Amino acid sequence: MRKHEILDQILTPADVKKLKGEQLPQLCRELREEIVDAVSHNGGHLAPNLGVVELTVALHRVFDLPKDKILWDVGHQTYAHKLLTGRRDRFATIRRYHGLSGFPSPEESEYDPFVSGHAGTSISAALGFEAANENLGKDGRVVAVIGDGSLICGLSMEALNNVRSTCKNLIIVINDNKMSISRSVGAIPNYLNRIITGYSYNRFKAFAKMALRKLPASSEIIGGIQKIEGATKSLFVPGIFFEELGLRYIGPVNGHQLPELIETFRRIREFNRPVIVHVITQKGEGYEYAERQPEKFHGVSGFDPDTGELSKKRGGTTFSGEFGRTLCSLAEKHSEVVGITAAMRSGTGMKDFSERFPDRFYDVGIAEGHALTFAAGLAANGLHPVVSVYATFLQRALDSLYHDICLQKLPVVICADRSGVVEDGPTHHGLYDENFALAMPDLCIMAPKNEPELAAMLELGYQLRSPVMIRYPRGGSGLGKLSCAPLEKGRAEVVRDGRDLSIWAVGREVKTALETADILKEKAGISCRVVNVRFLKPLDTELLRADALKMPLVTFENTLLGTGLDVLADRLLIGEKHCGILHFAWPQEEKIPHGTEAELRAQFGLTAEAAAQTVRSRFFEKSAEQERK
Amino acid sequence: MRKHEILDQILTPADVKKLKGEQLPQLCRELREEIVDAVSHNGGHLAPNLGVVELTVALHRVFDLPKDKILWDVGHQTYAHKLLTGRRDRFATIRRYHGLSGFPSPEESEYDPFVSGHAGTSISAALGFEAANENLGKDGRVVAVIGDGSLICGLSMEALNNVRSTCKNLIIVINDNKMSISRSVGAIPNYLNRIITGYSYNRFKAFAKMALRKLPASSEIIGGIQKIEGATKSLFVPGIFFEELGLRYIGPVNGHQLPELIETFRRIREFNRPVIVHVITQKGEGYEYAERQPEKFHGVSGFDPDTGELSKKRGGTTFSGEFGRTLCSLAEKHSEVVGITAAMRSGTGMKDFSERFPDRFYDVGIAEGHALTFAAGLAANGLHPVVSVYATFLQRALDSLYHDICLQKLPVVICADRSGVVEDGPTHHGLYDENFALAMPDLCIMAPKNEPELAAMLELGYQLRSPVMIRYPRGGSGLGKLSCAPLEKGRAEVVRDGRDLSIWAVGREVKTALETADILKEKAGISCRVVNVRFLKPLDTELLRADALKMPLVTFENTLLGTGLDVLADRLLIGEKHCGILHFAWPQEEKIPHGTEAELRAQFGLTAEAAAQTVRSRFFEKSAEQERK
Repeated sequence: MRKHEILDQILTPADVKKLKGEQLPQLCRELREEIVDAVSHNGGHLAPNLGVVELTVALHRVFDLPKDKILWDVGHQTYAHKLLTGRRDRFATIRRYHGLSGFPSPEESEYDPFVSGHAGTSISAALGFEAANENLGKDGRVVAVIGDGSLICGLSMEALNNVRSTCKNLIIVINDNKMSISRSVGAIPNYLNRIITGYSYNRFKAFAKMALRKLPASSEIIGGIQKIEGATKSLFVPGIFFEELGLRYIGPVNGHQLPELIETFRRIREFNRPVIVHVITQKGEGYEYAERQPEKFHGVSGFDPDTGELSKKRGGTTFSGEFGRTLCSLAEKHSEVVGITAAMRSGTGMKDFSERFPDRFYDVGIAEGHALTFAAGLAANGLHPVVSVYATFLQRALDSLYHDICLQKLPVVICADRSGVVEDGPTHHGLYDENFALAMPDLCIMAPKNEPELAAMLELGYQLRSPVMIRYPRGGSGLGKLSCAPLEKGRAEVVRDGRDLSIWAVGREVKTALETADILKEKAGISCRVVNVRFLKPLDTELLRADALKMPLVTFENTLLGTGLDVLADRLLIGEKHCGILHFAWPQEEKIPHGTEAELRAQFGLTAEAAAQTVRSRFFEKSAEQERK
Repeated sequence: MRKHEILDQILTPADVKKLKGEQLPQLCRELREEIVDAVSHNGGHLAPNLGVVELTVALHRVFDLPKDKILWDVGHQTYAHKLLTGRRDRFATIRRYHGLSGFPSPEESEYDPFVSGHAGTSISAALGFEAANENLGKDGRVVAVIGDGSLICGLSMEALNNVRSTCKNLIIVINDNKMSISRSVGAIPNYLNRIITGYSYNRFKAFAKMALRKLPASSEIIGGIQKIEGATKSLFVPGIFFEELGLRYIGPVNGHQLPELIETFRRIREFNRPVIVHVITQKGEGYEYAERQPEKFHGVSGFDPDTGELSKKRGGTTFSGEFGRTLCSLAEKHSEVVGITAAMRSGTGMKDFSERFPDRFYDVGIAEGHALTFAAGLAANGLHPVVSVYATFLQRALDSLYHDICLQKLPVVICADRSGVVEDGPTHHGLYDENFALAMPDLCIMAPKNEPELAAMLELGYQLRSPVMIRYPRGGSGLGKLSCAPLEKGRAEVVRDGRDLSIWAVGREVKTALETADILKEKAGISCRVVNVRFLKPLDTELLRADALKMPLVTFENTLLGTGLDVLADRLLIGEKHCGILHFAWPQEEKIPHGTEAELRAQFGLTAEAAAQTVRSRFFEKSAEQERK
């Protein structure tokens, strides 16, 4: 642990209050050093955390945790908060396997009241905290800190609509950095921007006062003024949009000026009505590389702190990259193809597309429900939308998938990127969307074993002119050179033939299957057939049944047990004289923590080595025993 | 078909344009008569449809369908539209099995561009239609008609945020009747109300003009005026909230004054920017019983048109009623119990609770995501929320169920009312939530066979102090007198013992199971054991396995095949030497239409008679044959 003059004194948030005001800038510098240091090693959300250092210090200077509650929206911005709340000694472990979570975690600290990994939950949950305080007569202030990008989530807006009818009090801090992950889009972020760049509160008030003084004070005018009191108040307050929702608007406040921030929070802590504080921050503040390229430094895998050079990615292609290239080539060929992202232009691989086809690219912001229903509208009126959303965020759009797309059999291609387990832990694993999708009427669900197959699936998805979902994990397949037989809807692909065991693998798990087959061959002379499932829906039931009647069947899928191929196989074979079935997937009832995929696979017996061992002891015990003799 | 002077002339919407202006009030009267007539027989949404008669006529008078598109939000308000678009001859079949849908249906008519049964989809989908028009250079205006209750859905707000960044044009008609199903709640409906009841546009403009004229015209002042142009404009326009979102606001307009409505639509049809038209309507307008009690007449099962007397409900208790009673008794005993509804106070049975415990009752409006995340916040801060949502609308809140409730193991009881098939058809069947819920960590899922068991499950749900879901269908069990053994988490209840066949039934399907058992006994002497599953999660795997090894196993569930108990049983038994398994549930790949539950059961072989026949031919063919001899 690096030595730090001020930070070394902070063991609990109460210690922040004991510091002298002039020590605070130094504390902020030290927090930034710690954050840059840890993220450069472990990866993580850099720019968002650097942007809220002063905001975090100011909040802890004014509010009393854990009696007061701070709910950080998309909790990846809580690194400074963690450093000030007794977790500095473990901070170097952040996002590492068995280390600190990259998000708020009540299991980790009493200073984290609520888990948050997805955007837009903070106001809704904070309303719950505040209403509970009021209902139970408990003390304490409740503060939601939410970015401008998250403010436009449907969930945030539903909560805003309910603030005044639900509770007497609430503090909502808008952390306005003009970004979600890409630049924030839409009318509400624009509105916030107009507040800042347009007229200032003071300039305006001064003019208005003067103008009113010069009016002849006839009783007619005075009566008029009184009548329009509500409206003139609007006139003088920039946050009229929020005022109309019944929230007092305060701002804009410079989010890097500690005295101004602290003074503002002190004042509003005493308010007895819901208030919005509009704080302007700079993503990446205090680390020049991140300031210059906040999108690049939003979330990183590690970097050289001195040069801002990102750690080299594993070589080769990625699924997201292939998606982006194929989308461009589809768009070249077919003028009705358009692309939609929900604030993940870069992550999903749509950057090139957005630049080459700006009129056919829609970034709807962090609004996955709208992304899919909007796509349905486009499709119903003649376009062919391709939407790419991280699997975990598709959970926000399942009703739109059913009610707006599948029920109407509309031609929309939905790519579920980052499906399966991811490094970020339980809030972000892409394990729950497929289960829901499998029950959808008329939805074709595919999973590519490698990048060229993803390209072929996108082409097929376009040709089908009906609802299509394609699921793939982060990164690349590592199987780029494996050839692909032509796709045929509902047909699996035999990647390798064999006679002792049939391994059916979904998507990139073909790689695990092939490795398992190699180990079984080498160590036990077991000849494995490896089948690439390709279509989860419609499944190649004919081939699956035939295989299972001939030899033991093993399935591999990067999803939860009980929600994917395993269920399809069990349902198909329950009445058949099969030769034994074994499934490899993630367990439903254990918490799958954060960590690298390799670490998680090792923990849950999902490496090729572990799988080979399990297969042997289940189906080939005698041969294994004989070998030992 | 009743004779109608004007309506008889309307075969397509073009005929509406041919009428003389003075004929339109008569047309509206005739439409109301047809609507009251059909709904009094078939049931349906009465008050919403009566409220939009003039609005519908005015839209068809001005816009050219199908080139122009009208997207009706929560499409249960399209009866007048259906009557004007070539469906009058079939209108008496509305909502009946094989009859007209109660919602817009592109399969039914080219004048229905988009399916809508759930609230809040219209703006999002309309943006898609408009963007497609602009992208493809197609003519035609796109109109979304949305109620004030649906406007606050997250999906609507996500779409509103995107209007200006997505397209150049769009007409959004707010049908403001101050109601969702109950009264609309929250800041946005309040805001709309302030527009109407507060100052009027004209009064205000007159004052403002005069005030500005009297200002001394110094250059300083004029400069100031120019600087604040945006703001003064706001000052003079009541719809500032929408104007700040980049939408031109027009209104309020009386929604029952045809000339005013038609003139307004003519004017805005020529606009070249997105516009909100704020139309004030009265739910139930023109039928005095519905005007007086719009909540009661929102959706009805049939009534006497002369007296407004609702058709008698089937006697006896209902699950919703029992839920409401038990919630009150829980609340009496435990001060931390609170109740949450998403605009379904009456339907879910919470009316009494809301009146007896107003401070512990939260109606969040049509905002299911917020309902669950808010509940999570309440629970994390010491309360014990009970949320009741119709199963179909839970699809809107699945991410909140996972990310905010289950992942944190928070004590929230979620009741999925109206689960299984319902009369309203594909948009409303409660068939997709359980599938998702089964994969949730730490969620206990129960289904009561009858009303007393629901009460016991609510009690247990409270005691568990962890996430709980209880699923039950509309209406009652018809098994009210069946006794209930004490509940034990994870244990099924043997309702009747037998030796030839074991029937495992979920919830109210115990009734179908008992009837099937009776038929099998009577017709074929087959002795059936009937087991009430009670806990889908954790399932009583021990008993299920034991049964399946002894005799053939049959499952009954009011959900989709492949998503419930059938999957749990198949997974459990795939490696066992079971005696044969057969599942009864709704098919995944066929469209389950609207109709009574009895009609739908008959179509899909899910009556006790059909099930008994299938069971006999599957497991007891020889005995059946022997019998015949």
